[in-house]
Amino acid sequence: MNIVLLSGGSGKRLWPLSNDIRSKQFIKIFKNEEGAYESMVQRVYRQIKKADPEAAVTIATSKAQVSAIHNQLGENVGISVEPCRRDTFPAIVLASAYLADVQGVDLSEPVVVCPVDPYVEDDYFFALKRLGEQAKKGEANLVLMGIEPTYPSEKYGYIIPEDGGAVSKVSTFKEKPDEATARAYIEQGALWNGGVFAYQLGYLLKKAHEMIQFADYQDLYQKYSSLPKISFDYAVVEKEEKIQVMRFSGEWKDLGTWNTLTEAMEENTVGDAMLNDTCTNVHVVNELKVPVLAMGLHDVVISASPEGILVSDKGQSSYIKPYVDSIDQQIMFAEKSWGSFRVLDVEEESLTIKVTLNPGHKMNYHSHRNRDEVWIVISGRGRTLLDGMYRKVSPGDVIVMPAGCRHTVFADTELKMVEVQIGREISVLDKQKYPMTEA
Amino acid sequence: MNIVLLSGGSGKRLWPLSNDIRSKQFIKIFKNEEGAYESMVQRVYRQIKKADPEAAVTIATSKAQVSAIHNQLGENVGISVEPCRRDTFPAIVLASAYLADVQGVDLSEPVVVCPVDPYVEDDYFFALKRLGEQAKKGEANLVLMGIEPTYPSEKYGYIIPEDGGAVSKVSTFKEKPDEATARAYIEQGALWNGGVFAYQLGYLLKKAHEMIQFADYQDLYQKYSSLPKISFDYAVVEKEEKIQVMRFSGEWKDLGTWNTLTEAMEENTVGDAMLNDTCTNVHVVNELKVPVLAMGLHDVVISASPEGILVSDKGQSSYIKPYVDSIDQQIMFAEKSWGSFRVLDVEEESLTIKVTLNPGHKMNYHSHRNRDEVWIVISGRGRTLLDGMYRKVSPGDVIVMPAGCRHTVFADTELKMVEVQIGREISVLDKQKYPMTEA
Repeated sequence: MNIVLLSGGSGKRLWPLSNDIRSKQFIKIFKNEEGAYESMVQRVYRQIKKADPEAAVTIATSKAQVSAIHNQLGENVGISVEPCRRDTFPAIVLASAYLADVQGVDLSEPVVVCPVDPYVEDDYFFALKRLGEQAKKGEANLVLMGIEPTYPSEKYGYIIPEDGGAVSKVSTFKEKPDEATARAYIEQGALWNGGVFAYQLGYLLKKAHEMIQFADYQDLYQKYSSLPKISFDYAVVEKEEKIQVMRFSGEWKDLGTWNTLTEAMEENTVGDAMLNDTCTNVHVVNELKVPVLAMGLHDVVISASPEGILVSDKGQSSYIKPYVDSIDQQIMFAEKSWGSFRVLDVEEESLTIKVTLNPGHKMNYHSHRNRDEVWIVISGRGRTLLDGMYRKVSPGDVIVMPAGCRHTVFADTELKMVEVQIGREISVLDKQKYPMTEA
Repeated sequence: MNIVLLSGGSGKRLWPLSNDIRSKQFIKIFKNEEGAYESMVQRVYRQIKKADPEAAVTIATSKAQVSAIHNQLGENVGISVEPCRRDTFPAIVLASAYLADVQGVDLSEPVVVCPVDPYVEDDYFFALKRLGEQAKKGEANLVLMGIEPTYPSEKYGYIIPEDGGAVSKVSTFKEKPDEATARAYIEQGALWNGGVFAYQLGYLLKKAHEMIQFADYQDLYQKYSSLPKISFDYAVVEKEEKIQVMRFSGEWKDLGTWNTLTEAMEENTVGDAMLNDTCTNVHVVNELKVPVLAMGLHDVVISASPEGILVSDKGQSSYIKPYVDSIDQQIMFAEKSWGSFRVLDVEEESLTIKVTLNPGHKMNYHSHRNRDEVWIVISGRGRTLLDGMYRKVSPGDVIVMPAGCRHTVFADTELKMVEVQIGREISVLDKQKYPMTEA
């Protein structure tokens, strides 16, 4: 099975855990069978591999997520990197061209596309396999998954099938309705449209060439920013006549808000938290190293991260976006290709951060014009490179890098350092990169 | 006026702002007339000086609070330091001996004793002055302040006066009652006992000598730990026959819980916080540098500090103590005689803290057996002393102190440093102090 997971943008609806550079799909909030925490991406990837160990997984995403994906899934996953965000039609075309031109997938092969973050059980992934097999048959150009509704939701579009069979032709599509209309749709046998579908690779590339002038994957990648922002539903699904829907009746949840996310949590707390016995329906996700104490609360979610603290009535939590948009804040924590950093202290003319490098990784070789930096190694072993000179480092070692000094560090084991930046104009833009050839 | 302010122990009822080493009276949560935040201690001290610029203020407290008192009030305040906690009778006797033997106060002078943390208006301090003047008259040995009740509280003891005059003899005292009993007391004209009273210095010392064998202040200080733990009410007030009560009808609040404390806040938030418009009666006190967002909450207090995060229904907040007692946590922030420190990062074999020295202050000259330390100056100017060698330091300077190295730092201006401690057994007990003679 070829599966393309659409990994969406940096939603703020799960602030303070998600922000401009950290998306909800990477938050480690679920417990796997061994009791370890895993993210939505890790959960879905593990479930795919369980349903089909041979599945070839490609993640369609932006550059900003590449580091987090490799950190969480390792190197065996294909990534179709969107140079910029252009909505789902260009993203799916780019991923399809990537499969054909980079991965060498045969044009007759089926491709299954689904969001990266459904909260589902293992049966969902067996259904995806069947979806691909149905597309392979060629009875239709597109085969959608139709999810049997469990309540008259206003959040989803609806698919009206021609009949009640396991696989049926699609009669029509309906936009997100109000609750009464949703109820009427469901009485007609309507299914939720979860944005999950399958096609033969050749079909989609033919469609793409009809709508976009491009030679191959490389060419498409180059001109990606000039493509129109258009959804796959609008560009393809709603116009296709040869289209089927396959029913899925298992559990399926879209965990887009704190309210729905906390419903999927196995325990009421993740991290250091204490609830007194007068709390009811309270969930705490605490990424900080200090305790959260909750007393006498009902239907409340509390989340604390290096970015901030949310305390919200669960129903209200879906209205979070404008408030978070109004917060203009320095990024306090980020995952990078080489590890992660966390801001420890901010002063007018200094910034103190904690840097963790993963074993075998290194930073870019770089310098700064307007700030001096000092590293103090607090754990692990590695090697620094300063203006062409190597040095082995271990805990307690102090490395001083005046402005202009070219520097990088290689981690032989996991390597943790405190980095103090000193200067009048500390900015992430003040960074000159160099090739490592002098080393 | 001689006024003794009793500064009580390290309550946990206002966790995470108060803890083992930080008491509620030092939390800067109130706005003064210039709009700057001040603590309860600062507010009360400012109000005393406004009512009586000549007032001699002595604070009776433990050693642990001396630094915070000097930091917040400066050096012009007398401090009677209790070597250990022995309840209010020994504390008041010690403070009285301090006034007589250290400050040279005449035995005929009145002394007014009150808690350090009432939340009151300026009229209260004029009432304290009148309380002292009444004690000076000598009509009674003790003159208590009786606060006119505003509701049938179960939290206070009651004073039943003989009549309704401004000053009356005390008929009897009543323990904290239940609400119905409190209502009956109030109908009889009862007053709250707020632990505020005045006496002539000679009276109290005579009483003290009847009950405790001691020569003078120094002698009493030496044997302080052997004194019985006994309250002033029990030892003196309830046994005294010549006792009067003076009415006070102004505003008087005891801000001992989050519920009562938030009632006294002028604005709903202190620090970086945002409440959406569906919040009602929500208060936020946020000492962290990241935002708190509250949505859809009612009657809730949120407080965040380097020690932790409290989210509590206001009514429930008075039951906080056992939960906080169960938290076994490293101190993350502390005020010291020389400034303050804040823990930035804790690892198994390292500790990173931010040190702020007040101008003109220095640390003890000391060394550590089992850890290396590094300072990086991030702002200000000063001088370090390492194994007898002085060095001027300014931002960007790095000072390396291997285990055994004797070190201190003097702040010429406010001086901020990041301190990284590296070692297998990092402990506050690993500290050897030296005299500064070699310098």
